Amino acid sequence: MKKMLQRLKLVASPKTVAIVGASPTPNKIGNVLMRNFLDSRFPGKICPVNPKHTEMFGLKCYAKVSDIPGRVDCVIIATPAETVPGIVEDCAAKKAGGVIILSGGFEEVGRTDLAQRIKEVADANGMPVVGPNCLGIYNPYTKLDSIFLPTYKLERPKPGNIAFMTQSGAVGSTVMDLAAFYGLGFSKFISYGNSTVLDESDYLEFLLHDKETKTIIFYLEGAKDGRRLLETMKRVNKVKPIIALKAGRSMGGQAAARSHTGNIAGSYMAYQAAFKQAKVTEAEGISEVFDIVKIFDQPKPKGNRVAVITNGGGMGVLTADAIESQGLALAQFSKETTEALRRILPAYGNVANPLDLVADAGVEAYGKAIDACMEDQGVDALIVIVLLQTPPIDERIIHVLTAATGRMTKPVVTVSVGGTYTESYRKVLEGKGVPSYNSPLAAVKALERFVTYSRYRESLEAK
Amino acid sequence: MKKMLQRLKLVASPKTVAIVGASPTPNKIGNVLMRNFLDSRFPGKICPVNPKHTEMFGLKCYAKVSDIPGRVDCVIIATPAETVPGIVEDCAAKKAGGVIILSGGFEEVGRTDLAQRIKEVADANGMPVVGPNCLGIYNPYTKLDSIFLPTYKLERPKPGNIAFMTQSGAVGSTVMDLAAFYGLGFSKFISYGNSTVLDESDYLEFLLHDKETKTIIFYLEGAKDGRRLLETMKRVNKVKPIIALKAGRSMGGQAAARSHTGNIAGSYMAYQAAFKQAKVTEAEGISEVFDIVKIFDQPKPKGNRVAVITNGGGMGVLTADAIESQGLALAQFSKETTEALRRILPAYGNVANPLDLVADAGVEAYGKAIDACMEDQGVDALIVIVLLQTPPIDERIIHVLTAATGRMTKPVVTVSVGGTYTESYRKVLEGKGVPSYNSPLAAVKALERFVTYSRYRESLEAK
Repeated sequence: MKKMLQRLKLVASPKTVAIVGASPTPNKIGNVLMRNFLDSRFPGKICPVNPKHTEMFGLKCYAKVSDIPGRVDCVIIATPAETVPGIVEDCAAKKAGGVIILSGGFEEVGRTDLAQRIKEVADANGMPVVGPNCLGIYNPYTKLDSIFLPTYKLERPKPGNIAFMTQSGAVGSTVMDLAAFYGLGFSKFISYGNSTVLDESDYLEFLLHDKETKTIIFYLEGAKDGRRLLETMKRVNKVKPIIALKAGRSMGGQAAARSHTGNIAGSYMAYQAAFKQAKVTEAEGISEVFDIVKIFDQPKPKGNRVAVITNGGGMGVLTADAIESQGLALAQFSKETTEALRRILPAYGNVANPLDLVADAGVEAYGKAIDACMEDQGVDALIVIVLLQTPPIDERIIHVLTAATGRMTKPVVTVSVGGTYTESYRKVLEGKGVPSYNSPLAAVKALERFVTYSRYRESLEAK
Repeated sequence: MKKMLQRLKLVASPKTVAIVGASPTPNKIGNVLMRNFLDSRFPGKICPVNPKHTEMFGLKCYAKVSDIPGRVDCVIIATPAETVPGIVEDCAAKKAGGVIILSGGFEEVGRTDLAQRIKEVADANGMPVVGPNCLGIYNPYTKLDSIFLPTYKLERPKPGNIAFMTQSGAVGSTVMDLAAFYGLGFSKFISYGNSTVLDESDYLEFLLHDKETKTIIFYLEGAKDGRRLLETMKRVNKVKPIIALKAGRSMGGQAAARSHTGNIAGSYMAYQAAFKQAKVTEAEGISEVFDIVKIFDQPKPKGNRVAVITNGGGMGVLTADAIESQGLALAQFSKETTEALRRILPAYGNVANPLDLVADAGVEAYGKAIDACMEDQGVDALIVIVLLQTPPIDERIIHVLTAATGRMTKPVVTVSVGGTYTESYRKVLEGKGVPSYNSPLAAVKALERFVTYSRYRESLEAK
């Protein structure tokens, strides 16, 4: 297996890519793939494979993979299920680096015979196979991109440190689209579908050793080998935090999962127990995955005491409620902090946590309040609520918030609720690495998960 | 009190507005107010009031309200707290329709003396007073707009049927901004702050009789008179659904609420019991308010059996999980429906609920699948997941989804997850009255609240 993972590295960073099922017909999968590689200016060699053509997009088109001269690192297959085992055999004969099978029509519709043939060839040759029934791999660093969705409809994230491994192509790709929208950076995206050859434990292992990956998002319906998965999650999560989203938690969901990727979703309680044992962070839904992951790049908090700064009182109240309901604590400001804060507030303001700077607060007041909380040893993390609609707040707030997170001493999360104007600022903040939320509850939930994981890591270091 | 509410109608639909504290200095509250009235082309008469000026924005400026000739329906006050009681007396002498006091510096900082003076004058004259310490009223139908936040930073919703009454200006205005962003329509926005004269029960009563209002969003920290509020909520919620967001649920939140609007938040358990007794729909956070309200315009479902249609299997699994965890049920398709659906699916597709049309599904398949579910008597509501990124889905999907909701026979909610491209489609859908969510869990939670409220209404009608 180790050899397969070595070769998987090559698949994700190929010099030569073959696209089997490449097509000149618009909207066909093999057409979208070709266009995506050409449009993104993939730096390696692109080889369309289709026996019906000799040339495509100005490139030489081959009848089969073994006709391509020289080494082929990555073969992407997008042809009907029945044709796939033969193509995989041809890839093995050619000694291709590895294969990504996008096509569906295998285990999930009862064609385990086809899947079995693929597995035998792969195992016999130590050749990694991703899929079938998946979107494959997107690597922003090398521009390998087997996602057969047009880039104008589905944005690709910039290079970064978040890896996303997902059984479901739809869930993975749409969340990735959302991530790109907010400027989050990805290290790898791996949609692995039926996991016929390589399974979730293999991909976790692969990402553990992937130098660009710091945090792993893991969407899972059902695992091939639960025991091995638990052991692997334990090992990986100690080094790189795993944020898991388990689908197929209900009876109806389990039935749906079975017909989706042919995997048995299994008892949710068993998975939940495994996540707990491995200290894996579990998300409740898609939005939460996204909320959580963007905070994990922040410096780890030493405790759960949160300072809240706001220019809207009601938002402070809602945040205080969320802090208590999620098991975090409102920090008690020290005497020094209280004095420093009193100097910032207008005459009728109260120094309290949440600190209500009131709607008159300007950017400078924010800067000073953040400074005071950063200095306070009784504060472990900051939630800075900025309602961007008030007249005194202008674009300099971006600098103040970027500088606060840039210190990398305590985690800082920001909350801004609003429409077009606010959303445009939130995008700028996210692009600059400042975690921004449009709901206090979402911010607090994410912070709580980060506090819990940080405590786990600290407990490991103490040993 | 009844007389005050009659007059409040006039305040919200004034022919003449006086702005006390009007200012030519940019970014001052009295300046933003003037600009907003002028920019929105308020159809009535605008009278700036400021003793330091005789003219402003080309309009005659008055030294005091009683100097204005003719009737004054609505006076907006934005001057320091100490000056307010005198101005209110002057308004009473002038027999102004009513007053909106934006200024802070009253109960919330211990100046109950100032508040008391205002209350006495208002009560003695039957003159409604909104505030103090609030944003006042926005009425899209008459363009009354006392929200002192610039329109380029905070969008105003178009006319519609959602009323929003809120103790907190910040919470209310930012949620309104978010609502405008998604094209939701508002009937009235009322930020009432300290509720010195009129309180939450009065505003609920007012909205019960407001012909443009169908649904009421209610953000509450603490009520003046809990017993009366319960009785009023019961009465109003039978006719117009109330969606409540209670802040100050925790100890920390209650303390923050006290210093925010001077109201005692009170035991959350008591409020929760009151909401339950009045069958008021409670939201957990800001995003949820927004998620819930947009579904309440849909036809009421007869039960809790949901059909799920998707072009991404994983999204179907997550939705099935959410349906079960939220206490809804996956509908069982009838024999006729199953046959109709089989004809739509590709050969390898499974007819099941969630119905996975797979990524190859085009707009026509959606139309047919929706038709089949609409006909099925065993289906009470539809969740239509459309991942807009797949090649066969184009802009015609908007027409299919709009037509489905336009039938007004069963509630239809849609889910689309993604970035820029998807968000632009979601905005179009929302603008056309199609509830759209970017998370299956959010969609299911909102639908569950609507099913519960619909059952309550049905139980009333059965009596």
